[in-house]
Amino acid sequence: MTTRDETTAATLDADPVQGHGYTANKEAYLRRLKRIEGQVRGIARMVDEDKYCIDILTQVSAVTKALHAVSLGLVEEHIGHCVVGAASEPDPDLRAEAIDVKVKEAADAIGRLLR
Amino acid sequence: MTTRDETTAATLDADPVQGHGYTANKEAYLRRLKRIEGQVRGIARMVDEDKYCIDILTQVSAVTKALHAVSLGLVEEHIGHCVVGAASEPDPDLRAEAIDVKVKEAADAIGRLLR
Amino acid sequence: MTTRDETTAATLDADPVQGHGYTANKEAYLRRLKRIEGQVRGIARMVDEDKYCIDILTQVSAVTKALHAVSLGLVEEHIGHCVVGAASEPDPDLRAEAIDVKVKEAADAIGRLLR
Amino acid sequence: MTTRDETTAATLDADPVQGHGYTANKEAYLRRLKRIEGQVRGIARMVDEDKYCIDILTQVSAVTKALHAVSLGLVEEHIGHCVVGAASEPDPDLRAEAIDVKVKEAADAIGRLLR
Repeated sequence: MTTRDETTAATLDADPVQGHGYTANKEAYLRRLKRIEGQVRGIARMVDEDKYCIDILTQVSAVTKALHAVSLGLVEEHIGHCVVGAASEPDPDLRAEAIDVKVKEAADAIGRLLR
Repeated sequence: MTTRDETTAATLDADPVQGHGYTANKEAYLRRLKRIEGQVRGIARMVDEDKYCIDILTQVSAVTKALHAVSLGLVEEHIGHCVVGAASEPDPDLRAEAIDVKVKEAADAIGRLLR
Repeated sequence: MTTRDETTAATLDADPVQGHGYTANKEAYLRRLKRIEGQVRGIARMVDEDKYCIDILTQVSAVTKALHAVSLGLVEEHIGHCVVGAASEPDPDLRAEAIDVKVKEAADAIGRLLR
Repeated sequence: MTTRDETTAATLDADPVQGHGYTANKEAYLRRLKRIEGQVRGIARMVDEDKYCIDILTQVSAVTKALHAVSLGLVEEHIGHCVVGAASEPDPDLRAEAIDVKVKEAADAIGRLLR
């Protein structure tokens, strides 16, 4: 959507050094995703070796949980960075609109996680 | 747990050809897991390239949903294969116990998915 | 759906005394649902009294968790009663069909819980 | 926790008219919760009348979904009201702390919803 892209661009323009909310923890996220990727590969190996279905399900639940933790971290950083960033916009009209966009984005993303 | 392992062994002994419930769809599961692994790698790439957090969250939700679909398939096959297999045990005492074990395993696995 | 209704009728005809899987625990389910109803009323009271949104959210999560526990109990009893009941059908053709119907119903219900 | 209560008090002091984020939609929330309460009572009636377990499960899923929608509304309003309110605090030290508290509360609440 153009609205979001423009807002994103605005956020980046306003704060080119800090980047996104998760940038400070980028290495930690990459390590966690690397581990999740390995877990998914492990599940494929279990299927390939005809492991017991319940044991495979336990591993799938573990990966889902790890992904939820990643999501939660990203949502927290979106709120603390993007929403708060929008709330710091000096122009009150732009601010109200930027807040609406960022809060709506957060809520939509949380809604997708809950489904 | 020994209880489960023994039951697993019993199931395999009783039916070495059919394997587990998911064996018939093994290739399909491996393809799906391969795709999920690629999606996780794609998320790591998005983080590495400082993509917008909400877009990353959308991808994480997609992977979670794909994993849920895999779980659901495995649960369905566990019920249709392991639970039904236990219910076909000719000795009534062994049958009652085998059913209890398999139903409990299914419920525990579903409980882990819901959490 | 007619298919399900017919199967349901068949199950009830075949076993009029035992009723459904949850019948043995009917009183316990009614007590749990009564408690959940009270919790929902408590949340409405919190909203009415302008309680802090996070405290309301905590209560909503508690109700959701209690409902998940009820669901899980019903699913477990569906598997242990309806699926196993279908697997005990003496006529092999009717049995295969009955199992398919009951397993599919269980998987669909679990799928709805996961969404 | 005292920290939260103090912050809450501060928020209310700062803005006694607006109340919480959900206050503007209070009547709508009360109506939705009333409907959910009725749905839970309907489920109890289904159990009491020995309705088919899968039909009960479908209703439980519907209530869970309705509660998720309520949660999501409350989270959205918490972010748009409490987090943004904290970001508008003029004193930079108080602001940083207030934002941290509110963002952490939001993330914890979302984490409880995901579990």
